[in-house]
Amino acid sequence: MAEDFEVTPFDVEGTVNYDKLVDKFGTERISDELKEEFFDLAGDRNLYVDRDFIYSHRGLDKTLEEYQEGDGFFLYTGIGPSGPMHIGHIISYYFTAWMQRKFDVNVYIQVTDDEKYWDRDITDDEIDEYVEDNVREVAAAGFDPDKTFIFRNREYMGNMYDGIVKIAEKVNNSQVSGVFGFEGSTNIGMNFWPAIQNIPTFFEEKRCLIPAGIDQDPYWRIQRDIAEKFGHKKTAAIHTKFIPALTGPDGKMSSSKPKTAIMLDDTPEQVEEKVKKHAYSGGGDTLEEHREEGADLSVDTSFQWLRNLLMEDDERLAEIAEQYSSGEMMTGEIKEILVEELNEFLQGHQERKENADEIVQQMMYEGDLAEKMWDKKIDLQRRNVKT
Amino acid sequence: MAEDFEVTPFDVEGTVNYDKLVDKFGTERISDELKEEFFDLAGDRNLYVDRDFIYSHRGLDKTLEEYQEGDGFFLYTGIGPSGPMHIGHIISYYFTAWMQRKFDVNVYIQVTDDEKYWDRDITDDEIDEYVEDNVREVAAAGFDPDKTFIFRNREYMGNMYDGIVKIAEKVNNSQVSGVFGFEGSTNIGMNFWPAIQNIPTFFEEKRCLIPAGIDQDPYWRIQRDIAEKFGHKKTAAIHTKFIPALTGPDGKMSSSKPKTAIMLDDTPEQVEEKVKKHAYSGGGDTLEEHREEGADLSVDTSFQWLRNLLMEDDERLAEIAEQYSSGEMMTGEIKEILVEELNEFLQGHQERKENADEIVQQMMYEGDLAEKMWDKKIDLQRRNVKT
Repeated sequence: MAEDFEVTPFDVEGTVNYDKLVDKFGTERISDELKEEFFDLAGDRNLYVDRDFIYSHRGLDKTLEEYQEGDGFFLYTGIGPSGPMHIGHIISYYFTAWMQRKFDVNVYIQVTDDEKYWDRDITDDEIDEYVEDNVREVAAAGFDPDKTFIFRNREYMGNMYDGIVKIAEKVNNSQVSGVFGFEGSTNIGMNFWPAIQNIPTFFEEKRCLIPAGIDQDPYWRIQRDIAEKFGHKKTAAIHTKFIPALTGPDGKMSSSKPKTAIMLDDTPEQVEEKVKKHAYSGGGDTLEEHREEGADLSVDTSFQWLRNLLMEDDERLAEIAEQYSSGEMMTGEIKEILVEELNEFLQGHQERKENADEIVQQMMYEGDLAEKMWDKKIDLQRRNVKT
Repeated sequence: MAEDFEVTPFDVEGTVNYDKLVDKFGTERISDELKEEFFDLAGDRNLYVDRDFIYSHRGLDKTLEEYQEGDGFFLYTGIGPSGPMHIGHIISYYFTAWMQRKFDVNVYIQVTDDEKYWDRDITDDEIDEYVEDNVREVAAAGFDPDKTFIFRNREYMGNMYDGIVKIAEKVNNSQVSGVFGFEGSTNIGMNFWPAIQNIPTFFEEKRCLIPAGIDQDPYWRIQRDIAEKFGHKKTAAIHTKFIPALTGPDGKMSSSKPKTAIMLDDTPEQVEEKVKKHAYSGGGDTLEEHREEGADLSVDTSFQWLRNLLMEDDERLAEIAEQYSSGEMMTGEIKEILVEELNEFLQGHQERKENADEIVQQMMYEGDLAEKMWDKKIDLQRRNVKT
């Protein structure tokens, strides 16, 4: 795609240097070749990968190779129930569900109702409320209810503690301090957390593939250090860029700052108001300047969101890019387009969330995979010699 | 007792200064008054307490007061399945079972099949073998199978994880480093261990009473720091002195050094051989010296074991003390008496262990308390504000 573009909007990336992040973390860019292989095997293209919003990986090549050889793989992601979710939270679940449908693989979703208690000033009641809500949001992303297992750590601990004991023995305080920055003032729950975070990567013999923000990559170093000691494969990962806040590329979308984020339960009116009031514009300060210089797409939230998250239609996006960057299209116009696309997305999402009761029940307790997992004890290979 | 003694063997304590330990740990000596109150309420006297082998406490006075007021208390101890057990291991269980019978209270016994994996170079199979063995040894100590719950952490974790999450949030790395000496090289399982160790102290609303070696006292500082934050009582403790090794008061009884210990499964012949060969004598080096100076009871293993662990009969013990310390009785004679007492004790113990199948099953799964505990989720009071 994108070869007939006059403007190549797919290279502009705001203020983050994503090449540097790849270097820093020692991951790899998803090459054009790997991208095509991914789409070939998926039997479909994907917006996020196509537009390089998902742009980095670790071991995706090996994962696809094993998939081709019939070994398969599985997906693992998590839900941290600490608040209502915004649009920046949900994208990765849509991508994960897309991969599940295309590759026909199992997905494990760990609800970290223990970690959030250790990490935040939050009560049990709040956690329960956010679990209830967040699980329904995630369910709306289109997972297969018979191949997806969503589990609350506090509920599922009895089934996975044997394996967690084994992981915890292989990881020491210095390691988690190095990787997570834990200190003397860190509570011992948080300090133990890496053992719990890692156990789902061992739920199957197959390779685990984790879709996550590029900034999360270092946290999986521990898994890569210990996996082979248990005869398991190192986990693979596929990394997203950051989604800019509504208020601009330097901010972070946050549920507690409504200006910065579109919440998943925002009404069409709220969306319109937020975008019009707060969406950061890369357009000129005056009409004259805008007509002359055009908009800076790299910092324009409306354009970035359309490109990275929402607008499937390549041609229309290219047109918008050209018109807006040339100054022909005004900020008000691109904001209208964003509002329309957001509301269309949210309408579908909210409807699916509304009707998620049954699939939530299946993914947590009664679906094929959930039933299998509740019957299972997760342990790791016993070793006779310490390594 | 002991007022008509010519020699007061009950004051001699080998090479450990137990008063200093009480000062160091900030515990209290069990006063004569408290001792009498304890016996009054128990409706019986107890060898270990009578002879000051159990000599220190923390909050035993409050515990007995609450017991008198009808609030009751419960007992908590543990089994660390890392090897076969010797006589030094079992005494505390006999005392705990005695208290259970006299005060009619529940006993919780935590089998630390997680902590031992983290702390020792030991395999799952070895742990399983020692759990099987150690639980039967402990069952032989005479617990009430309907009021005793023996649980393996790895098995029972699902029922207690909610509460453990709450404890872990209240304890930080610096605290466990201060109390347990954990370091960077400590694995994150061991570092988390204090949260698991503490949860049974919250199994009931009543005060928990822990019988333990005086050296274990500091490990419960964390419980005393956090208990009231959950609306629970600080745990009380009742402390034993150290049991000298067979080879003398400076050594430690150890299963891996057979010379130093009488194992619970030793045959009468093995006991006789070990005592005759290895029991440290406080007697004179020559017959002449012995007849002249007598034995030093404070370092003589035979005498110390008889006094602290085995010989119920005060008068006979006083006679032995007098005769042996005056040089009238020879080392060979007191060793004969020890062999006889040990073998009598071991014969009864081994028979009870042999027939422990059913009561083990009750204490772990099917007795009244066990059934209640398997139906229960342990959680701690939810708080609305961090304290």
